[in-house]
Amino acid sequence: MKISNRMMAMQASPIRRLVPFADAARKRGIKVYGLNVGQPDIETPPEFMDAIRNAEIKVLAYANSKGDPQLVKATSDYYKRIGLPYEPEDIIITNGGSEALMWAFIAVADVDEDILVPEPFYTNYRSFAAPYAVNIKPLTTYAENGFALPSEAEIVSKLTDKTRAIALSNPGNPTGVVYTREEVEMLAKIAKEHDLFIIADEVYREFTYEGLKATSFGEMTDILDRVIIVDSVSKRFSACGARIGSLATKNKELPEQILKLGQSRLCAPTLEMIGSTALYQLDPSYFDPIRERYQNRRDVLCDGLAAIDGVLCKKPMGAFYAIAKLPVKNAEDFAKWMLTDFNDNNETVMVAPVENFYQTPGMGVDEVRVAYVLKTDDLKRAVEILDKALKVYPDRV
Amino acid sequence: MKISNRMMAMQASPIRRLVPFADAARKRGIKVYGLNVGQPDIETPPEFMDAIRNAEIKVLAYANSKGDPQLVKATSDYYKRIGLPYEPEDIIITNGGSEALMWAFIAVADVDEDILVPEPFYTNYRSFAAPYAVNIKPLTTYAENGFALPSEAEIVSKLTDKTRAIALSNPGNPTGVVYTREEVEMLAKIAKEHDLFIIADEVYREFTYEGLKATSFGEMTDILDRVIIVDSVSKRFSACGARIGSLATKNKELPEQILKLGQSRLCAPTLEMIGSTALYQLDPSYFDPIRERYQNRRDVLCDGLAAIDGVLCKKPMGAFYAIAKLPVKNAEDFAKWMLTDFNDNNETVMVAPVENFYQTPGMGVDEVRVAYVLKTDDLKRAVEILDKALKVYPDRV
Repeated sequence: MKISNRMMAMQASPIRRLVPFADAARKRGIKVYGLNVGQPDIETPPEFMDAIRNAEIKVLAYANSKGDPQLVKATSDYYKRIGLPYEPEDIIITNGGSEALMWAFIAVADVDEDILVPEPFYTNYRSFAAPYAVNIKPLTTYAENGFALPSEAEIVSKLTDKTRAIALSNPGNPTGVVYTREEVEMLAKIAKEHDLFIIADEVYREFTYEGLKATSFGEMTDILDRVIIVDSVSKRFSACGARIGSLATKNKELPEQILKLGQSRLCAPTLEMIGSTALYQLDPSYFDPIRERYQNRRDVLCDGLAAIDGVLCKKPMGAFYAIAKLPVKNAEDFAKWMLTDFNDNNETVMVAPVENFYQTPGMGVDEVRVAYVLKTDDLKRAVEILDKALKVYPDRV
Repeated sequence: MKISNRMMAMQASPIRRLVPFADAARKRGIKVYGLNVGQPDIETPPEFMDAIRNAEIKVLAYANSKGDPQLVKATSDYYKRIGLPYEPEDIIITNGGSEALMWAFIAVADVDEDILVPEPFYTNYRSFAAPYAVNIKPLTTYAENGFALPSEAEIVSKLTDKTRAIALSNPGNPTGVVYTREEVEMLAKIAKEHDLFIIADEVYREFTYEGLKATSFGEMTDILDRVIIVDSVSKRFSACGARIGSLATKNKELPEQILKLGQSRLCAPTLEMIGSTALYQLDPSYFDPIRERYQNRRDVLCDGLAAIDGVLCKKPMGAFYAIAKLPVKNAEDFAKWMLTDFNDNNETVMVAPVENFYQTPGMGVDEVRVAYVLKTDDLKRAVEILDKALKVYPDRV
């Protein structure tokens, strides 16, 4: 018996590939500052666990395949508070943003059809598409200009008769880019003129800095039938382990069609839906101090990195990631060396190599993604350690 | 923009298709006895909610993609108690048995390859396979002989060079069949001789009656590298809403490969894994009174149905389903009529038409699936209502 080719061809998580080296470092007594994963240290609002602890449950029964009606309503109310037109009938609750993205990919693309994605992109987009034999096609963006989108002409030149959608995260993972209103409108125009869906992963919507507001594709009122919005409580409310996401669209056919996928896997986890309802009912002021905290952390980390000789790190305007170009031949080798061969006072730093966030070979080999999900003192120390490490790294360029 | 062909071609849940008619009946004040879905009324063991209520969680973080290590260990311990050899490294925790089945299908089959499944089968097998462009090929079994497997020669005649696996539920949904040790051994032999995987959905393992014990494919020691065991807490512990399942295999390559799918969707829901750990730590005697209760219900329902003139209902030995052949032209029309046009003292019964549980056109048109997940008094009354309904049904044959 042979394991399928598509299974064998799938990537192992490039973010998690270095984990064994970090574990070994910790076993040697070394403290590892983890800038590699987007797991916030912010406390989950207590309303989440309170709602679950107070739930009277005798039989933990299947929930509605579309989602617990109260959570669907709370999600719709959340959208309306931020000016987006999604009614309960437009929304399906999913097992995290992950499932919403997978379902969006299936819904728009048949076997061997393409979805265009600005690169670098969240590597799991590739893992979501691969089992369905959907191709991710890259649209390259560059650290040097803050990962702005290319021109309309260049984007259109990437479209083929197999392109079914443009998918993107905004604010962006791994880049932290927040697309301008003009960029969002340009993609909306392209979608309309070239008959495409837009799959808009907006899970970092609230995390924008210096007063900037991210433009949602849900504001592009003349193409709303082409827009699929993906959301999640994971980052928004620091509830990554809940695995509660959602998919929303004003397309008249899609919700009924996609619900067939929902019915096949029966429902999202019941308790976590109860907790997530409480999260979406929080007052919007919940985000203010958190946004401020992330902005401070971003400033500490990015200013610190940019001050290191040879490092390029443009300060991103959203999410809680930044990409740093390092003066090294190969950033994965450097990241591994930090864990296996370097320490400063028994401390080191773990970063995520970015090469695998690009689809185009050769891109991103000297880049790492850093997540500012640690306290500012820890971030300062992490910058100091990176500075010292780069000074003695043998493969520096 | 066009919704994908595969999305449009997917079935809506045939079990849930009649729900609007049941809702309308309830609105008219009619009590509906639901024999249509496998949602047990048994209370979820309180250990589940206790474990979650007592969990000290500040940040609800991502769990391990392979599953919470304590749940993996508890699942392995459960397997060892029942004589199956699955170690923690052989097990991956999934979002319900549903995700385990999807992953098994991807792992063994590429686009347009086939999986052979005895029909009638749990209709969602089709929905699990369709998005991946995997074909389900039916191996017909018949109500008249209790849905026993056909001969080895007949099964082998169904294999082609595209067949990658045989998938089946044992004890069976929707049939309640428990395959004999000889049947299980025959499939093991076929798998070995024809180089196939076996995907064994054994989520009803504990629900067997009259002292019978289901034979697990995990006991087929000379083909364990070909066996993928699918399990779930849903029915086992009446915790359907938890969405916690698992996949287990002694194949040396599969766990690492399938974990790539696990990493891409990050993790199963954290809280529900904490609760499920407590479930798998329950003493095995937990099942004794429940098994007895289901056996009583089965006897009430099946004996009652079999006594109705023109109804064929062989008493199944496992799970909590039975298939009844009714003296009607079309069982779906009858099921709908029960909800729209019939009532006895403002009460009626909802059953699941079985035609869609078959892949072969024309099979099962006069069959319904009944689940004995109600109290015996309610089952008695449901039988009485069905008897009265069949007496006056205009399309009786």
